[in-house]
Amino acid sequence: MRKLYIIGIGPGNPEQVTIQAIKAINQVDVFFITNKGETKSDLTQFRKEICERYIDEPSYRTIEIIDPWRDPTIDSYTSQVEAWHQQRALIYEDLIKNELQEDECGAFLIWGDPSLYDSTLRVIDQIIGRGQIHFDYEVIPGITSIQALAARHKITLNGIGESICITTGRQLSTDLVSSTENVVVMLDGTCSFKNVLDKEVEIYWGAYVGSDKEILLSGTLAETLESIEAARSAAREKNGWVMDTYLLRNPSARRLDK
Amino acid sequence: MRKLYIIGIGPGNPEQVTIQAIKAINQVDVFFITNKGETKSDLTQFRKEICERYIDEPSYRTIEIIDPWRDPTIDSYTSQVEAWHQQRALIYEDLIKNELQEDECGAFLIWGDPSLYDSTLRVIDQIIGRGQIHFDYEVIPGITSIQALAARHKITLNGIGESICITTGRQLSTDLVSSTENVVVMLDGTCSFKNVLDKEVEIYWGAYVGSDKEILLSGTLAETLESIEAARSAAREKNGWVMDTYLLRNPSARRLDK
Repeated sequence: MRKLYIIGIGPGNPEQVTIQAIKAINQVDVFFITNKGETKSDLTQFRKEICERYIDEPSYRTIEIIDPWRDPTIDSYTSQVEAWHQQRALIYEDLIKNELQEDECGAFLIWGDPSLYDSTLRVIDQIIGRGQIHFDYEVIPGITSIQALAARHKITLNGIGESICITTGRQLSTDLVSSTENVVVMLDGTCSFKNVLDKEVEIYWGAYVGSDKEILLSGTLAETLESIEAARSAAREKNGWVMDTYLLRNPSARRLDK
Repeated sequence: MRKLYIIGIGPGNPEQVTIQAIKAINQVDVFFITNKGETKSDLTQFRKEICERYIDEPSYRTIEIIDPWRDPTIDSYTSQVEAWHQQRALIYEDLIKNELQEDECGAFLIWGDPSLYDSTLRVIDQIIGRGQIHFDYEVIPGITSIQALAARHKITLNGIGESICITTGRQLSTDLVSSTENVVVMLDGTCSFKNVLDKEVEIYWGAYVGSDKEILLSGTLAETLESIEAARSAAREKNGWVMDTYLLRNPSARRLDK
């Protein structure tokens, strides 16, 4: 039976790959690599570097997947993404059927970890639901940019006994920050931290964390807001893309009764 | 100058250790290993296994730290833990000063990741704040039990564009579950999921995830609540300790406007 690995390869430092991931990568006959256009070619390059660095006997093939078009005329964000995933499922299904022999092993290499803001597992579920092809699959966890961010800032994400909320730039609201001690924000294309009203909230920000392009900034929003925005903008200009993550820590949300 | 590594070693599978962690472990002269009593000796054993498996030229020393007593007469949970960390800081400071030569490298091996519900970085901050000894230190991220749990259940932690809350058994409330699509619970000694009112909430539960003792259960709370409680209790009886994590997914908290 065909086998698929969905492998987390960490946030961009080739040494932040696990032994489990390396062992799996060495079993793979076909890597399916999604091409998201030129601006993200560093990400494609990182996947290639992982393969070149860690595969002992290179006999694998690489299949580039052209990502389907995301229909901007669909109003609801969720429906738009769902329609896009359905298209991806058809493409992946076709490639698995035609490019992977019955006894072969394929893999998707996932930036960070497959469980966090990545659609591959949802697409795999759709393929399974369609019932047209059969395969085994295994998921291998990876270091997330959240862990890498905290490590580089040498901080814990939570104070003693506190909760942490992980969210996206789209969902970051003033309410959320005022009621939660620790908010981690991912996928934020618009510096949503600017909208936080309480400028005494602390931010621990990082871009390209763990890689040689890494930028780290921290302080209260009052102190750092403008320099983060400027650094982010300059980095995107220079590199053609930017991937950043940050923690907002709100001391005034801390409850006294704990 | 002395150097300390604070190294995440993942949730219990020796293959879920990164190349970065292995390289750091190979630099270490002295491992500081906290002894939390006989019931957690499997955790101590896991740390030893990591060293034995990955260190090329074993010339390291191991110093066992007897964890200080946690004063149950202090009412506030936070104050109790803070007092305990202050005691730890004194003990660690003493050991770093006396057991580590000026040019040597010491390490703490952290279960999971140092940024998530682990006190070592807070204790290090206290030692630095006291200013009695000087050292460099570096934090190396590890796979958390959350990533490992999601990988074994082959699930994503979030639906499209959704947030995730990570919390502890102590903080898990009915309010939190009814307002959050995805709640990850750690450090829950009392099966707090029993208190969730809506039994249609789905749970993805795992104990000893990634290790050879692993147990995985999932379903609605109505279906699985009793079997999880029984499995947890039997496992703790058999092994003397249990470490479990779970995701609560509440479809009715999903907003339609996304």
